[in-house]
Amino acid sequence: MKLYQMHKAPNPRRVRMFMAEKSITAELVELDLQKGENLTQEMRAKNPLGKVPVLELDDGTCISECTAIYTYLESQFPEPPLMGTTAVENAQVVMWEHQVELALMLQIGMCFQHTTGYFRDRMTPIPEYGHEAGKIAQQYMKLLDRRLGEFQFIAGDFFSAADITALCAIDFGRVVDIRIAEEHSNLARWHAEVSKRESAKA
Amino acid sequence: MKLYQMHKAPNPRRVRMFMAEKSITAELVELDLQKGENLTQEMRAKNPLGKVPVLELDDGTCISECTAIYTYLESQFPEPPLMGTTAVENAQVVMWEHQVELALMLQIGMCFQHTTGYFRDRMTPIPEYGHEAGKIAQQYMKLLDRRLGEFQFIAGDFFSAADITALCAIDFGRVVDIRIAEEHSNLARWHAEVSKRESAKA
Repeated sequence: MKLYQMHKAPNPRRVRMFMAEKSITAELVELDLQKGENLTQEMRAKNPLGKVPVLELDDGTCISECTAIYTYLESQFPEPPLMGTTAVENAQVVMWEHQVELALMLQIGMCFQHTTGYFRDRMTPIPEYGHEAGKIAQQYMKLLDRRLGEFQFIAGDFFSAADITALCAIDFGRVVDIRIAEEHSNLARWHAEVSKRESAKA
Repeated sequence: MKLYQMHKAPNPRRVRMFMAEKSITAELVELDLQKGENLTQEMRAKNPLGKVPVLELDDGTCISECTAIYTYLESQFPEPPLMGTTAVENAQVVMWEHQVELALMLQIGMCFQHTTGYFRDRMTPIPEYGHEAGKIAQQYMKLLDRRLGEFQFIAGDFFSAADITALCAIDFGRVVDIRIAEEHSNLARWHAEVSKRESAKA
């Protein structure tokens, strides 16, 4: 398998960390997103939206969107489970992972894109919106802090893909100065624990 | 099971349509989102983000986020399949459904919320951003039109959850005058076909 990615971008890190937890290896193909190396005709044939990560299987099938890559890898490499072990647990992981993606990762990404103009050649940055997105992310971290006062991990008392997505989002937040607030001690406890995993370095 | 929803909102329709395809019944609990009936303490205990739809199982377990509800219902009511029948098909459905949600449903929703100020009591509408979101949605419809020139349905030659999400998004687009462009004949063909399904009335 090949993983098309940019090493410092937050979404490819989600997939690398997921793979590291399961000891899955793939050839990493590095692309410079700011230079638009993800927007070539060749890459658009792999993912029409021109985004990374894209996982290319040995038969040429391409899967993009982290959630879809998680789903595929979980089906092929079930151990250790990262998507829960029962139907209800699985639904809870999908639910939390999705909320973390939309209310945290996406908002931090929008804050980054709209306040820095990193992709100004292909979108119209609206700084006012970027700041609002940053506030939504911070608001959601408050909710996560409460959740992590009740459970060891985000989807419950088991490590899952939701924790991977949240760790990658929060660590990326530093580029726009979004950090865990001092009063969010549960979130800080969780962050320290999850950051210690070997997979966090992937 | 109970489904907490607002009938005219686009996301609850995704779940009603998914359930109708599988002949699943649930008690519908109607909430007025503009009045904030989804933001009560009782509803926040079911979904901390205070969004609908929320599916409540008979034992009280709550699942929110359409994608998570799709995943759970597919596991309990596998026929007819709406998430593909092989691991690769499943990944393709998750991928397309996710892209349709983020590049179409979410953008139309942001266009609606930021240009109309429907939820102005709980967010800061930024009309300029709303218009940009509308453009992203229209751009994605062009991509879907090309896709539907190659395949009968969005994830391939089989009907899936990705078609449900796309239909609900496109139909909701009318509230902000986002419609299928005249030149997008493949998308129009698909829309006519999918709209004829009995489940589209759910």
